[in-house]
Amino acid sequence: MTTAQLVEQIKKKQSFLCIGLDVDLNKIPEHLLKEEDPIFAFNKAIIDATHHLCVAYKPNTAFYEAYGLKGWQALEKTINYLNSEYPEIFTIADAKRGDIGNTSTMYAKAFFDDLAFDSVTVAPYMGKDSVEPFLAFENKHTIMLGLTSNKGAFDFQTKMVEGKELYKQVLETSKTWVNSENLMYVVGATKAEFLADIRKIIPESFLLVPGVGAQGGNLQDVCKYGMNDSVGLLINSSRGIIYASNGEDYAGEAAKKAQELQTEMAEILSA
Amino acid sequence: MTTAQLVEQIKKKQSFLCIGLDVDLNKIPEHLLKEEDPIFAFNKAIIDATHHLCVAYKPNTAFYEAYGLKGWQALEKTINYLNSEYPEIFTIADAKRGDIGNTSTMYAKAFFDDLAFDSVTVAPYMGKDSVEPFLAFENKHTIMLGLTSNKGAFDFQTKMVEGKELYKQVLETSKTWVNSENLMYVVGATKAEFLADIRKIIPESFLLVPGVGAQGGNLQDVCKYGMNDSVGLLINSSRGIIYASNGEDYAGEAAKKAQELQTEMAEILSA
Repeated sequence: MTTAQLVEQIKKKQSFLCIGLDVDLNKIPEHLLKEEDPIFAFNKAIIDATHHLCVAYKPNTAFYEAYGLKGWQALEKTINYLNSEYPEIFTIADAKRGDIGNTSTMYAKAFFDDLAFDSVTVAPYMGKDSVEPFLAFENKHTIMLGLTSNKGAFDFQTKMVEGKELYKQVLETSKTWVNSENLMYVVGATKAEFLADIRKIIPESFLLVPGVGAQGGNLQDVCKYGMNDSVGLLINSSRGIIYASNGEDYAGEAAKKAQELQTEMAEILSA
Repeated sequence: MTTAQLVEQIKKKQSFLCIGLDVDLNKIPEHLLKEEDPIFAFNKAIIDATHHLCVAYKPNTAFYEAYGLKGWQALEKTINYLNSEYPEIFTIADAKRGDIGNTSTMYAKAFFDDLAFDSVTVAPYMGKDSVEPFLAFENKHTIMLGLTSNKGAFDFQTKMVEGKELYKQVLETSKTWVNSENLMYVVGATKAEFLADIRKIIPESFLLVPGVGAQGGNLQDVCKYGMNDSVGLLINSSRGIIYASNGEDYAGEAAKKAQELQTEMAEILSA
């Protein structure tokens, strides 16, 4: 998917919501555990109930890998379902991969070719030659960790490196990489005020913003500091939406939570 | 597996060799492609031919994920084979994972519980709360990226942060984390002279050293600067061993290459 197609979808749906599909078998409604594939059954119902309210889904690979082969199968069924039933949706494999060149190419093949995701999240610690292999894929997007939403972000990311914070060095350096136009960035919502500075470095790029809701981030603040002319934001909510209820009404309740966010987003877009 | 058991195995085998199982279907002998599971068939033959010469195997997850479900299945069969046939072997899932707390717990479950690896590699960019969930598993080892062997290591890892290189900050900070005794570190062999400094920070820890062979690192130098009283080194070689031949003699040729390294290691250990 091209960035232009993503922006078009945002305008059409008046939403820049991304729903995180972090499926934990201990948290989904108990009646689903009788299904042959409880994870996929859960995802399918959530997707069917919310696809008109969001522009992206983001399965976090950890939650699938934890269930071994069955988990990987559920991930495959989920992305195939999205690509066949809702091809307009932007799909994110939240995998936070990154390794030396030939290995990153294998990860890129896994998520872009084999699973056919539109994008994948990557970690920057290993530098240019660990990220550029992902950037080489046309119309695919590499979402690199910039400033994350967890407490540990302050361990290294905000440390001063040659006069500026490490995460700013990471953002600036990444702009010099080949095919850097295929980069998006993860920036946590819990640090909304940092977004103004970030926008000075990467004014055009899309930002994937986790941490709204369960982690305490505020949507209004994120938009105030982070929005650009093409919106440029994907706001992720996972637990706040998918675990709105653990009864039989879970999909409907998830849709209500997604609707609340979409309504707030539509208001912001029309302001 | 405990660290003491690993050290015991090193002394018994007079080897601290780790063999990287980075299986690429384009590089394995063509006759194996007729097998039902060519990746596992390749791994099994390599393992059977080399297990007495090495103390660890390290499948890199990227190479399995790239083949989707079949790849994940081959990974599962490989670790199960190792655990049942050669339980004395130390197993490393080279996955370079890392995410916010609850997600890292899921990754830890995937590799420590579901797949039953002894260890997993992780990336440090997200800080303490992204690594500590891995450290909570008893008799499991978390191998964190310190200084990697690729060119991109110089993009961020060697940048000065508060008077010392980022990778040194990472090593020092990690020592303060809960259960830090379960940490090992990745340190690239292509920068052997850095090992003396690294040993000042983490004198006791095991180091996983990639980059000997194909990436140009030198075994003698690594041992000179990096070895401690308990050896404290796992030297990884992947392509140099497993792709020694792509004919029907591949396993035997791999064993010869492994034997060369083991012989060199035995000499170093007895010196």
